[in-house]
Amino acid sequence: MYIGKVIGTVVATRKDEKLVGTKLMIIQPLNMELKPIGEHLIAVDTVGAGIGELVIFAKGTAARIAARKMDSPIDISIVGIIDEMDVHE
Amino acid sequence: MYIGKVIGTVVATRKDEKLVGTKLMIIQPLNMELKPIGEHLIAVDTVGAGIGELVIFAKGTAARIAARKMDSPIDISIVGIIDEMDVHE
Amino acid sequence: MYIGKVIGTVVATRKDEKLVGTKLMIIQPLNMELKPIGEHLIAVDTVGAGIGELVIFAKGTAARIAARKMDSPIDISIVGIIDEMDVHE
Amino acid sequence: MYIGKVIGTVVATRKDEKLVGTKLMIIQPLNMELKPIGEHLIAVDTVGAGIGELVIFAKGTAARIAARKMDSPIDISIVGIIDEMDVHE
Amino acid sequence: MYIGKVIGTVVATRKDEKLVGTKLMIIQPLNMELKPIGEHLIAVDTVGAGIGELVIFAKGTAARIAARKMDSPIDISIVGIIDEMDVHE
Repeated sequence: MYIGKVIGTVVATRKDEKLVGTKLMIIQPLNMELKPIGEHLIAVDTVGAGIGELVIFAKGTAARIAARKMDSPIDISIVGIIDEMDVHE
Repeated sequence: MYIGKVIGTVVATRKDEKLVGTKLMIIQPLNMELKPIGEHLIAVDTVGAGIGELVIFAKGTAARIAARKMDSPIDISIVGIIDEMDVHE
Repeated sequence: MYIGKVIGTVVATRKDEKLVGTKLMIIQPLNMELKPIGEHLIAVDTVGAGIGELVIFAKGTAARIAARKMDSPIDISIVGIIDEMDVHE
Repeated sequence: MYIGKVIGTVVATRKDEKLVGTKLMIIQPLNMELKPIGEHLIAVDTVGAGIGELVIFAKGTAARIAARKMDSPIDISIVGIIDEMDVHE
Repeated sequence: MYIGKVIGTVVATRKDEKLVGTKLMIIQPLNMELKPIGEHLIAVDTVGAGIGELVIFAKGTAARIAARKMDSPIDISIVGIIDEMDVHE
């Protein structure tokens, strides 16, 4: 899984019917020092994540599993909200 | 899922028979500031996206799910047309 | 899917038996301006692509679907030969 | 599979129920000279790896297989602890 | 699939039981000019590849197919040993 921050939402009225009812959030992937890395992504929220929250997200089949929608075209989902990261370098 | 812009089409008469009848669009992946990131991709359109439109695309099995063609060699599909992106940095 | 150019072939006599009989082609991934991007790949040809041809290739399960060999260790296949790319920047 | 070092843990009380009970570790991917490469990842530990240990991790379906949780939104798991790497350049 | 060179081995006594008995090799991915690209990987050998040999490797489900171990946490496998690469730039 990956670390990210929820930084926005996407509105798309014309979309796959299996995406109707899902919350499409924009995520900025982060490294552990909370620095932005890589490209912005669109993830389905499955745990009630809000704007600005640090989250855990998963890709591929894991994303459909999280959304409990195996027949939907989802390939990235938020699967947890980070309370704390303990780093021991 | 990912943010992209439809910037062209591909014509390929000699192709896998399971791709016959699909609309092959060229996509420029974008970040949220609509800046180009990464390489051009070829996606199957499943929502009627036109040239110049901002779209949501998915990869892997999700792409076949979107195309409703699980037995086709599709690994990227357009699954939504973006109306709006609300960013809260 | 992705844009590429066939630039060579690979000979490997000691290989997985399920790869026997497949044409292993070397592909240079390209962007839409036909500039090289990313690393060379090895793809199974499924549409009769020749050296120098511009092709469409797919990755993962889609590659096995294209090769009609779901039980083979294939993860990249050529699925189409590009006649034309119309770009509308 | 990939080489990594366990450098921390993640606490996330609000998460997918199928992740409850898993140990979420932060991994720094490494190359063979043990130099950091790429972004930090979150992996489920399945072999009792501790902080500072060099590990082998796998991605995608392999990660769910390792966790023996095919119905969970896991896409990265630790699958081994490295005793030794013999390099013959 | 991808081009690589076997440059070492990994010893990991504490690992997933389904990996017991597999040969874990360290691979340096290469481009066609045999220049190193990307990060070192760990692959299961399925064709008797030795140190220094140029190999073909596959990722994801294809890797488990090559190892004939669909229930093992393998996501990269060596699937062929390269005899020759004919390049026609």
